[in-house]
Amino acid sequence: MIIQLTSSIQSSQKDSIVSKVTSLGYKSTEVNTQLGSYLIAIGKKEFDIRQIGFMPGIADIHQVSDEYKLVSRKWKVDQTQVDLGDGVFIGGGSLAIMAGPCSIETEKQVELTLTHLKKSGVKIMRGGVFKPRSSPYAFRGLGVDGLKMWHQLAKAAGIKIISEVMQVSQIAEMDDYVDVFQVGARNTQNFNLLDELGKVDKPVMIKRGISGTLEELLSSAEYVFSGGNEKLILCERGIRTYEKASRNTMDINAIPILKEKSHLPVVADPSHGIGIREYVEPVALAAVMAGADGIIYETHQKPEEAYSDAQQTLDFSESERLIRKMKEAFALRDSW
Amino acid sequence: MIIQLTSSIQSSQKDSIVSKVTSLGYKSTEVNTQLGSYLIAIGKKEFDIRQIGFMPGIADIHQVSDEYKLVSRKWKVDQTQVDLGDGVFIGGGSLAIMAGPCSIETEKQVELTLTHLKKSGVKIMRGGVFKPRSSPYAFRGLGVDGLKMWHQLAKAAGIKIISEVMQVSQIAEMDDYVDVFQVGARNTQNFNLLDELGKVDKPVMIKRGISGTLEELLSSAEYVFSGGNEKLILCERGIRTYEKASRNTMDINAIPILKEKSHLPVVADPSHGIGIREYVEPVALAAVMAGADGIIYETHQKPEEAYSDAQQTLDFSESERLIRKMKEAFALRDSW
Amino acid sequence: MIIQLTSSIQSSQKDSIVSKVTSLGYKSTEVNTQLGSYLIAIGKKEFDIRQIGFMPGIADIHQVSDEYKLVSRKWKVDQTQVDLGDGVFIGGGSLAIMAGPCSIETEKQVELTLTHLKKSGVKIMRGGVFKPRSSPYAFRGLGVDGLKMWHQLAKAAGIKIISEVMQVSQIAEMDDYVDVFQVGARNTQNFNLLDELGKVDKPVMIKRGISGTLEELLSSAEYVFSGGNEKLILCERGIRTYEKASRNTMDINAIPILKEKSHLPVVADPSHGIGIREYVEPVALAAVMAGADGIIYETHQKPEEAYSDAQQTLDFSESERLIRKMKEAFALRDSW
Amino acid sequence: MIIQLTSSIQSSQKDSIVSKVTSLGYKSTEVNTQLGSYLIAIGKKEFDIRQIGFMPGIADIHQVSDEYKLVSRKWKVDQTQVDLGDGVFIGGGSLAIMAGPCSIETEKQVELTLTHLKKSGVKIMRGGVFKPRSSPYAFRGLGVDGLKMWHQLAKAAGIKIISEVMQVSQIAEMDDYVDVFQVGARNTQNFNLLDELGKVDKPVMIKRGISGTLEELLSSAEYVFSGGNEKLILCERGIRTYEKASRNTMDINAIPILKEKSHLPVVADPSHGIGIREYVEPVALAAVMAGADGIIYETHQKPEEAYSDAQQTLDFSESERLIRKMKEAFALRDSW
Repeated sequence: MIIQLTSSIQSSQKDSIVSKVTSLGYKSTEVNTQLGSYLIAIGKKEFDIRQIGFMPGIADIHQVSDEYKLVSRKWKVDQTQVDLGDGVFIGGGSLAIMAGPCSIETEKQVELTLTHLKKSGVKIMRGGVFKPRSSPYAFRGLGVDGLKMWHQLAKAAGIKIISEVMQVSQIAEMDDYVDVFQVGARNTQNFNLLDELGKVDKPVMIKRGISGTLEELLSSAEYVFSGGNEKLILCERGIRTYEKASRNTMDINAIPILKEKSHLPVVADPSHGIGIREYVEPVALAAVMAGADGIIYETHQKPEEAYSDAQQTLDFSESERLIRKMKEAFALRDSW
Repeated sequence: MIIQLTSSIQSSQKDSIVSKVTSLGYKSTEVNTQLGSYLIAIGKKEFDIRQIGFMPGIADIHQVSDEYKLVSRKWKVDQTQVDLGDGVFIGGGSLAIMAGPCSIETEKQVELTLTHLKKSGVKIMRGGVFKPRSSPYAFRGLGVDGLKMWHQLAKAAGIKIISEVMQVSQIAEMDDYVDVFQVGARNTQNFNLLDELGKVDKPVMIKRGISGTLEELLSSAEYVFSGGNEKLILCERGIRTYEKASRNTMDINAIPILKEKSHLPVVADPSHGIGIREYVEPVALAAVMAGADGIIYETHQKPEEAYSDAQQTLDFSESERLIRKMKEAFALRDSW
Repeated sequence: MIIQLTSSIQSSQKDSIVSKVTSLGYKSTEVNTQLGSYLIAIGKKEFDIRQIGFMPGIADIHQVSDEYKLVSRKWKVDQTQVDLGDGVFIGGGSLAIMAGPCSIETEKQVELTLTHLKKSGVKIMRGGVFKPRSSPYAFRGLGVDGLKMWHQLAKAAGIKIISEVMQVSQIAEMDDYVDVFQVGARNTQNFNLLDELGKVDKPVMIKRGISGTLEELLSSAEYVFSGGNEKLILCERGIRTYEKASRNTMDINAIPILKEKSHLPVVADPSHGIGIREYVEPVALAAVMAGADGIIYETHQKPEEAYSDAQQTLDFSESERLIRKMKEAFALRDSW
Repeated sequence: MIIQLTSSIQSSQKDSIVSKVTSLGYKSTEVNTQLGSYLIAIGKKEFDIRQIGFMPGIADIHQVSDEYKLVSRKWKVDQTQVDLGDGVFIGGGSLAIMAGPCSIETEKQVELTLTHLKKSGVKIMRGGVFKPRSSPYAFRGLGVDGLKMWHQLAKAAGIKIISEVMQVSQIAEMDDYVDVFQVGARNTQNFNLLDELGKVDKPVMIKRGISGTLEELLSSAEYVFSGGNEKLILCERGIRTYEKASRNTMDINAIPILKEKSHLPVVADPSHGIGIREYVEPVALAAVMAGADGIIYETHQKPEEAYSDAQQTLDFSESERLIRKMKEAFALRDSW
């Protein structure tokens, strides 16, 4: 159960509500976000909400049967629109395009990418400075110095930045230089990281785990929301299955299902979803048609020379063509 | 290696080619289809094809490294177009729509469905008369009598029929009454059935196995082709994964991959691919955008009263809307 | 619901029971096996069984909530012991060992294998004469002639035969020459084949599907049982998962679960379960310890020269060592 | 390539080796553990190791083709034995038993468990004080205070402690109070955590990821080893598959495969591997027979009242019986 509190609630009123809820056999958790205050009451017995509905300080009460509560669409029918500032949004009826290299490599590379994105009207650039790698001997990214360089150039170009955060200590280091924190597929259930991202006032995009269920993805989002941060985006990036003809199996089903279950925007990552350069386009277009609020993909001036993910990265002319087609596909979808 | 033979080849010439190929350490299989004659030569050693290229009776020679040969795109770049007669085709640049109930139930139902399809410009009706059911106590379909009734009505309406064949003995029973034989997901590797369908001069659509790989699907098609029947269609219908939020996981990646690996048309089945009525539409549209040559889905005048698959069946107004949107999506894709 | 009928029931009594059950809203299926007669009543409403319990011709009534009925342990607590004749059994407290090559190849091979088995005290030989192969160009087995040769030699040696049947027409061909019909992993849901095997009075071992659930395996066994054949054995042979370090993932959990859910004997196939020769032994021993009623595995006089499955086949000295260890492991388990 | 350095190597000698390796086109990483010093040289070109073999400071050179190097058995044939102190070991020919509750709950519970373990001759107690939970509203463990209480009681009883560490900041907090750090299935690829555990001189047991490959597990162990900590244990705990009859699918194959690929001890967790209390015993016994060096499982004085994992936890009498059987099974295996 979600008990929405009024913004003017007094602390004694809150105490009374908590006592009442506790006396009814429920365990309550107080949640304060950028946008509101809530009590999440968890319990097994049902009770008549009229028993508490009259109490001062309560704005609204919602019964939510899902395991996750605050990210459920059962209490918030309107889709959340995440604001990145300067008129850039994810969700809420537009199509957000995020493109860029797997890893930030050089100043030159960043400049070329920004030029390409500006020309194509793309407002968000992706890139990794901390890279999760299976092998300890592989390239692990440029780190914070690379991020600062990138941020300076992107800011000058009027382009927003999304980049992966891998551990708690990186949150503070990165906070001034990113517009969206990305939680990677290996960290979807890194609960300490999620807890800490709840304390930040900056959008967070959570990727589905490598073999995570949709339920788990939503519960991970609930961690961040209940920690205090409502600015959340979900991302489908393919799952691990028995089929090895593609790197992952893009779960196209996840898009309509997540949009039905949650009010959060849903982004698709076709680069990881299929993992093969020549098929990124059809998968991206399919995701647009299935209802995605955004697409995030990898592009590089010379994919074959990229430090990582070379086999699934588009060059700029492929990227340009994809952007044009995605816009046309989205326009068609939007016309229905 | 595929050795294409000339139509005028004499039997002594064929013998010479077989002898030569055998002497080079290859095992050869002769294949005669509706459209041509081939020798499939399988062996490990490489040899210079000029050693046999001059022999009379040989039209062309193709080296194909894939496990499957005749269905590979490595020797036949142009996409196959399967002709159902009366100007109805699958593949070759159009979008084939196939719709109808899970099971054929009554004359009334067939009539209503035909009327709906005609009105919407759909030329192929799907429906099952032999139903594979996990439980021996479940409804197993109307059998051949149902098929005859359906065929009579469909023929009068000018609509083609696709229906599942479950065992060898049904092939002869069904042959006069279907336009396309469907091999179901539980029979993708029923090799005896595939062998027999190779002897039929009628299109066959093979569904991917419940957890079949794309390689296995193509090898199953190779069975039918090498048995003598080139009129083949592949169908992606979702695979079994750990995720239980949907009935199956629609493998959208399979569409571009199959189209690259094979010259055969690729159809998508969103009804089984997601298994949830309200999400069939976005998944169908995604499949169109990903490059499918056709869509097969379930519709019924009263889905909640259908004998089977009620939870994934569209009603006629949903079906009409889907058809309209698919046509618009296909037109957009076709314009690129 | 399973209604066990008396052996002396009269047909008018049976009619009365069917009418009564129908009037209560249940659909009934009559089942006559080698061992008894049953009515399977399927319906949604609950009724008090005392309403029918008094009726003449009824021996017993069992409420079984599982989807499958006759193979459930909910009505038959004692484990089924399948009798192969001449004092050879599967199930019922002993450990049945079945060994032999993937494919029957030559007379010489059969003789060597029989000698090895006799020496080791193994009473059942496995071998394939009809081979399901993904590629139409691969070796498909010696067919019925090979089976006859094998049968003659095995009979002389006092060894029983288990061999795979792939299609309905092979049942009659094989019937005189096998002691146990095996249904392979690609045919677990070949329902027509299962129906026909219900009409045979000979043991049938059903392998779990390549990605079949335990529920599906039990439902497939229900097909054969409800068709009239109670002589059934279940076989776990590994499932398809994302992990490619082994050919399949042996589902060791399946053994205790199947033994709890069903009264049928449960055999394990470590050769296919892991697919790597040097690890067949530990997996076989694990299966014995987990409670398997039998082990089926591949052995060949020269594994590296076997026509098929060379990489997972033991030579005779490995086989001998495995047999000795399995007997010791089983003796320990049996002592508890 | 692993270049083992002598303990007396001088820094100038090391510099010469690094220069030489670099000049040959290899990238080198220096690794210093509790037990030795190594240079890991990664590169694509092959070179004749005699080119460097003569250089002073080199003890030995091993070519290791695996992605992981230091944990591979290709350079270290003898199995690693991890020393927990006071004569308690994991690996090296004995069977280590680790048992205890999912979560540490109360002093009373700890005392009862310790008494049970002492009586049964078990020397390592498991238990969680930081619990990874999908839902932010679930019980998250007693934290460090619980650990201190537990440690005091266990130390007095002469029992070692293994407990999960979830994030970098907990390493220092826990270090004085645990004997083995456990990395949970959701953190197998938390590379920052692995890096930090490389700096600790205390055994680390790494669980396989929820759908992690064996290759990934070994690479995660490589992170810790290359960070400086050789005291490593691998743990198979079941993987996520399509089968939902059990919580996870215990991958019994993983045990012999990991033992072949790596010199590290391999422990099995049947509680999570099957997730159903009544089947923990057969799965544990199977794992012993398959070659496991240890078994870790959940036990509680009153499983039905446990704060977490109640459905897969043994009571003390079940635990006692399991311990006795595991010892007998291990004795049999050891006799071969």
